[in-house]
Amino acid sequence: MSSPHPSTDMLKQIREFTRTELIGKHEELDALSEAPLPLYDTFTKAGLANWWLPPELGGRGLGLEESVDIVSELSYGDAGVAFTTFVSILGTTMVSLYGSPELRERLLAPMAREGGFCATLGSEAAAGSELAKITTTATREGAGLVISGKKFFSSNSGFADFLVVIARSGDDPDEHVAVVVPRDSPGVTIERRWNMIGLRSSGTYQVSLDGCHVPMGNVLSGSGLRLLEIALNASRILIATTAIGVARCIRDLCMEYGKRKSLHGGKLVSNQVFGSKLADMEVGITVMRDVCRAAARDFDTLMKHPDAAGEFLREGTLKSAITAKMFCGRTGWDIASTGSEMFGGLGYTNELLVGKLVRDMRYVSIVEGGDDVLRDLLYKRFVIPVGKRG
Amino acid sequence: MSSPHPSTDMLKQIREFTRTELIGKHEELDALSEAPLPLYDTFTKAGLANWWLPPELGGRGLGLEESVDIVSELSYGDAGVAFTTFVSILGTTMVSLYGSPELRERLLAPMAREGGFCATLGSEAAAGSELAKITTTATREGAGLVISGKKFFSSNSGFADFLVVIARSGDDPDEHVAVVVPRDSPGVTIERRWNMIGLRSSGTYQVSLDGCHVPMGNVLSGSGLRLLEIALNASRILIATTAIGVARCIRDLCMEYGKRKSLHGGKLVSNQVFGSKLADMEVGITVMRDVCRAAARDFDTLMKHPDAAGEFLREGTLKSAITAKMFCGRTGWDIASTGSEMFGGLGYTNELLVGKLVRDMRYVSIVEGGDDVLRDLLYKRFVIPVGKRG
Amino acid sequence: MSSPHPSTDMLKQIREFTRTELIGKHEELDALSEAPLPLYDTFTKAGLANWWLPPELGGRGLGLEESVDIVSELSYGDAGVAFTTFVSILGTTMVSLYGSPELRERLLAPMAREGGFCATLGSEAAAGSELAKITTTATREGAGLVISGKKFFSSNSGFADFLVVIARSGDDPDEHVAVVVPRDSPGVTIERRWNMIGLRSSGTYQVSLDGCHVPMGNVLSGSGLRLLEIALNASRILIATTAIGVARCIRDLCMEYGKRKSLHGGKLVSNQVFGSKLADMEVGITVMRDVCRAAARDFDTLMKHPDAAGEFLREGTLKSAITAKMFCGRTGWDIASTGSEMFGGLGYTNELLVGKLVRDMRYVSIVEGGDDVLRDLLYKRFVIPVGKRG
Amino acid sequence: MSSPHPSTDMLKQIREFTRTELIGKHEELDALSEAPLPLYDTFTKAGLANWWLPPELGGRGLGLEESVDIVSELSYGDAGVAFTTFVSILGTTMVSLYGSPELRERLLAPMAREGGFCATLGSEAAAGSELAKITTTATREGAGLVISGKKFFSSNSGFADFLVVIARSGDDPDEHVAVVVPRDSPGVTIERRWNMIGLRSSGTYQVSLDGCHVPMGNVLSGSGLRLLEIALNASRILIATTAIGVARCIRDLCMEYGKRKSLHGGKLVSNQVFGSKLADMEVGITVMRDVCRAAARDFDTLMKHPDAAGEFLREGTLKSAITAKMFCGRTGWDIASTGSEMFGGLGYTNELLVGKLVRDMRYVSIVEGGDDVLRDLLYKRFVIPVGKRG
Repeated sequence: MSSPHPSTDMLKQIREFTRTELIGKHEELDALSEAPLPLYDTFTKAGLANWWLPPELGGRGLGLEESVDIVSELSYGDAGVAFTTFVSILGTTMVSLYGSPELRERLLAPMAREGGFCATLGSEAAAGSELAKITTTATREGAGLVISGKKFFSSNSGFADFLVVIARSGDDPDEHVAVVVPRDSPGVTIERRWNMIGLRSSGTYQVSLDGCHVPMGNVLSGSGLRLLEIALNASRILIATTAIGVARCIRDLCMEYGKRKSLHGGKLVSNQVFGSKLADMEVGITVMRDVCRAAARDFDTLMKHPDAAGEFLREGTLKSAITAKMFCGRTGWDIASTGSEMFGGLGYTNELLVGKLVRDMRYVSIVEGGDDVLRDLLYKRFVIPVGKRG
Repeated sequence: MSSPHPSTDMLKQIREFTRTELIGKHEELDALSEAPLPLYDTFTKAGLANWWLPPELGGRGLGLEESVDIVSELSYGDAGVAFTTFVSILGTTMVSLYGSPELRERLLAPMAREGGFCATLGSEAAAGSELAKITTTATREGAGLVISGKKFFSSNSGFADFLVVIARSGDDPDEHVAVVVPRDSPGVTIERRWNMIGLRSSGTYQVSLDGCHVPMGNVLSGSGLRLLEIALNASRILIATTAIGVARCIRDLCMEYGKRKSLHGGKLVSNQVFGSKLADMEVGITVMRDVCRAAARDFDTLMKHPDAAGEFLREGTLKSAITAKMFCGRTGWDIASTGSEMFGGLGYTNELLVGKLVRDMRYVSIVEGGDDVLRDLLYKRFVIPVGKRG
Repeated sequence: MSSPHPSTDMLKQIREFTRTELIGKHEELDALSEAPLPLYDTFTKAGLANWWLPPELGGRGLGLEESVDIVSELSYGDAGVAFTTFVSILGTTMVSLYGSPELRERLLAPMAREGGFCATLGSEAAAGSELAKITTTATREGAGLVISGKKFFSSNSGFADFLVVIARSGDDPDEHVAVVVPRDSPGVTIERRWNMIGLRSSGTYQVSLDGCHVPMGNVLSGSGLRLLEIALNASRILIATTAIGVARCIRDLCMEYGKRKSLHGGKLVSNQVFGSKLADMEVGITVMRDVCRAAARDFDTLMKHPDAAGEFLREGTLKSAITAKMFCGRTGWDIASTGSEMFGGLGYTNELLVGKLVRDMRYVSIVEGGDDVLRDLLYKRFVIPVGKRG
Repeated sequence: MSSPHPSTDMLKQIREFTRTELIGKHEELDALSEAPLPLYDTFTKAGLANWWLPPELGGRGLGLEESVDIVSELSYGDAGVAFTTFVSILGTTMVSLYGSPELRERLLAPMAREGGFCATLGSEAAAGSELAKITTTATREGAGLVISGKKFFSSNSGFADFLVVIARSGDDPDEHVAVVVPRDSPGVTIERRWNMIGLRSSGTYQVSLDGCHVPMGNVLSGSGLRLLEIALNASRILIATTAIGVARCIRDLCMEYGKRKSLHGGKLVSNQVFGSKLADMEVGITVMRDVCRAAARDFDTLMKHPDAAGEFLREGTLKSAITAKMFCGRTGWDIASTGSEMFGGLGYTNELLVGKLVRDMRYVSIVEGGDDVLRDLLYKRFVIPVGKRG
């Protein structure tokens, strides 16, 4: 990138992609069509894929703070597309920080140059909010590991190039590892694609691993649960960020409707109660962006540290990251709830877009840790210890 | 009915119907299948149809207060079915109070004895929250009237026996009439069925009326807009009531899930935060029922008045009726919002019922007057006049 | 009372009392002046005191449902006065249901005929939300009991005629008794009057009991904790009811201000956002009244049962009573919060009444069981048991 | 300042001041004692006064972003003290940007070196939310202006060194000026000090100006209303910031109480519902700080612009500034409301600090523009124009 403002360039390209590929195509995007949709090829061909990967691997090297506006823009078009394009960051962050140089080069360089996806396999049917209950095992066998288990919700795994699997160590059941499994490994089976309420242009899968052999070099260094926790900072911040884009879209739909809709001899847009609600939406949008950017700066600061891997191991979950996800989940839902009542009876039909937006918005508070789980974590880590309070 | 407790009998039958015909059949009920579904025949054959019609016409004669638990029970099973079975009350109330004895006998007695539906055609594309903008006209021609216009949202009209049409008077454009049009009249065309976000076992239609001839005897006495306003009291109270049933269903699903779901070595049901949320749901359910019953008693009291027609003309909209709809719409939505976050990632898939319940619940705040419209009405009618305040 | 409508008469008298004694006297009522204020004499002389006491003891015998409007009216004038006049019901209910005929006659007949107060001494410094931790003891000595302990919050005890003390049994530390102690008994010391944030025309005291001798006939029959729980139904419903009166006063002050206040060339009262907020207040007021009346009817129904004492022992806490208190506490606080922002900068001075009303309103959610305590109780008693759900 | 980290030094000093002068002295601070309290001398002597004034005038030159933590810390001790120390920024910003070099030197240099206060006189009895209704006039007379009028709410004016008065121009009634009037000018009368509900260690006054003569050099350049609007950005951001400090204090009081308070055999601090509420407070605190800092950065960026005066004239009200005030007002109030229910009955007495904190918190949503006024402004300026949306 020779441009002096790589993020401005990127944002311009993202806006163009959103305008041409997403806006106005909601019916198809909402249809649970075959995943991944062809538009991801377009995204990759435009050189946009995996924009956060570092320049030394051939990536654009954009930070998380710059990603806030990128993801807001994409999710203005479609939250499922936004999610699909960024959620690989969960796996790439683990590999980038805790994989060997060989592994980084082997896995991440192609993603930076040619696009592609990775998936993280954490949760299991009985290990959702309590990941320590994971029963998938990684057992030593010869010079490598054998991975077996069943994973419940895993985004992108149906078409990812590789999977980062969190598994219980066969040597020590109190230990967990994070280990890379190529998706085409024998033993990897995509059991089903989940029929999701929203984000229907994305794909989330149930996956079974039946005796998958991988070399020891595929193991990331450090506790698998801690590594996952660290990488969740990035994806949670960007999940929070999708709420901004969806909320902006709801706001703009309301304003367009308000300009058309007659009321008491004027237009709805001149009604004070309408204005008051739109102002509240704008406040929410402004605050959500502030919060996501503040969290992203925290993440970027650690990422730029000479010993980023060590710093992240010490920090684990960032308060700002889970704050962003909780706050944007609620604020986004409030905006979606208000928006869904703005269009009269039409707003209760599938003629208008708002119904899809409400369904898309809902995921922010649910995916990668519900509010109750995160609140509990935040209380224990950042309120009980006096020195961690704000 | 010889039973000393007709409402207890009825409620028992309704529970049986809900258990056998609705619970566990949500996939079909949510599928926007052909309307009306065969189960409405079952409902009619069980003698349950149009339970509020008066004994002198062959009906069960249950009051609105008794209808609260009936509708709560039905909507526990499926809100769309509940809505379909009660929304005829909008038309039957107008006919019952303001139709000639001949009209009442001709239209309502069959509905009481053999079931069947009626539909009310009020809103138009440009006359939703402002019904005074109605452009459908009723013009004198010979000994009768000719009705022409396009109606936007009309529930049940695709299969109703007759339609109560609100139209502008051809004689005086400041006047409106409510006039009965048999659905099989020449000129009545069902233009489309709306693809609704929820309540998908019900049918709401766009209807055009093209030169429909009706005799003068089909005209109800009084201003059409006022008559509609009066009858909306009944349907709004029952719309509010559906929120109770849906909320009860959400609560019970949460409790079932809470008993199964392991958490921190115990069950979710023992978690204090979970208990606190369920307690809040129960408070909401209790209060919604109190509010609906209070409004229903107000309605029943007027209905039992010797000059019910005159009393209702004087009262118009009841404060308690719009209070019930506004309150239950919001409280129901809060419960649905909380409920939708209770099931972890599974709650964001269509495997569980909660997604449908959220979509069903949404209608309470939207149909038959959004909150902004009702708040405005309530302020002008019941807050500005000192004597009308509570 | 020979009038056919005793409650209408009563309400008329209460309105007169409120108008002449309370409205416009807020400065004095808010001043933490000597308690009880002389106006309670006026109240008694008008024959209004303890209006719920039964006719056979010389009382007016008004039910709790009728008391809802009475207390709403009084608290429209001043919540502290309302509280002072009704909170004796906590003790009189226990004596009325579980005292010997002699005790009822001795204690309640004078209160019915001549007015006066009783106080209940339940909570202790370390036994607030957990009354089972009470350390005050009632030990047999000779033909009577000796009561010793320290009670934390007790309303009216500084001027009550008798105290109903909840104490741990000296015979069996797992048992508690409710026992009547005349306030002038040797050993009764009023330690301090609490400086309350609101309700400042009422008096709440810390009391010590140091070897107070009472005859066995002063003991009420049944478990002291259960008896207290039963009587709390009455006081909690009336505490909830005070929120209605305070909210009505806030609403009226807002409307008066809105009529005076100029805005954009008109009056604030014509502003749509203002109207929308006032409509929401009216909805809240309407719903609060419905909820309090529903709970009061539940209480009255049990009270009229031939075996009221036994029925209440079986029921204990009524779901409707704690629902009313929780709901009105929150709704009242929402209204107070909105109201406090309605008057611009003036609303932040002590020139206007709204600051006092906010402070008064706050008590509803705090006194006689905070929301967390009641939610926990409601969950365990009325949500976990399937048959108790609404 | 030779220190490489002036803001760290400052913050350390502020913490020390808060610890020694404010914490534990709430009774006096809440007493509406003589203003200004002697502690402001201590503040000045420590070199802390007016910390934002630029180095070229002898000030510390700290930016608004750095002021966020300073004001949060002060208001952790006492919001009234925080408000008193920063609200001069309203006047100093106007003088700094739009006063002549002579005026800046004459007025601001002493404030930077020796402390002191200035006050802004904007609102009038009939010109609160609509400042364009100001009737105070500034009329040319000889070589100067004569100012006459009555000003309603003016903080610090009872003890300020000079007043910045917003007045209608005598030449053109459509124009307004901002003009400096020394407080000791003949004709300036402090009519009364307002008895405020909270912030009682601060002083807000009603002031009359009766023919006050000032030279033309005292007039600031530009429209008085626009200048006021510009300067309000700074004070509104810092008003928002006080909510952070008060909220942090509430949180810490809750945690201290939670550690002491026994519940169900453990401590309240281990209760999940308690933890959940505290986590929500922490989320609120974190987000408020993010929002205030983002707004402060916006302000600082403009302030550092070579043509700051011109840039501010173009921008006027910053969206981020009113967003911060609205958001922190509401979030702070939610935290205060929750906090006020945390301490059981004791929390309803004046024994505990929480009652004062609730009263202090309330001002954030009221002072310098209520939410309805700001929402209206935000809608018109930043939502209707498409390009201004977030």
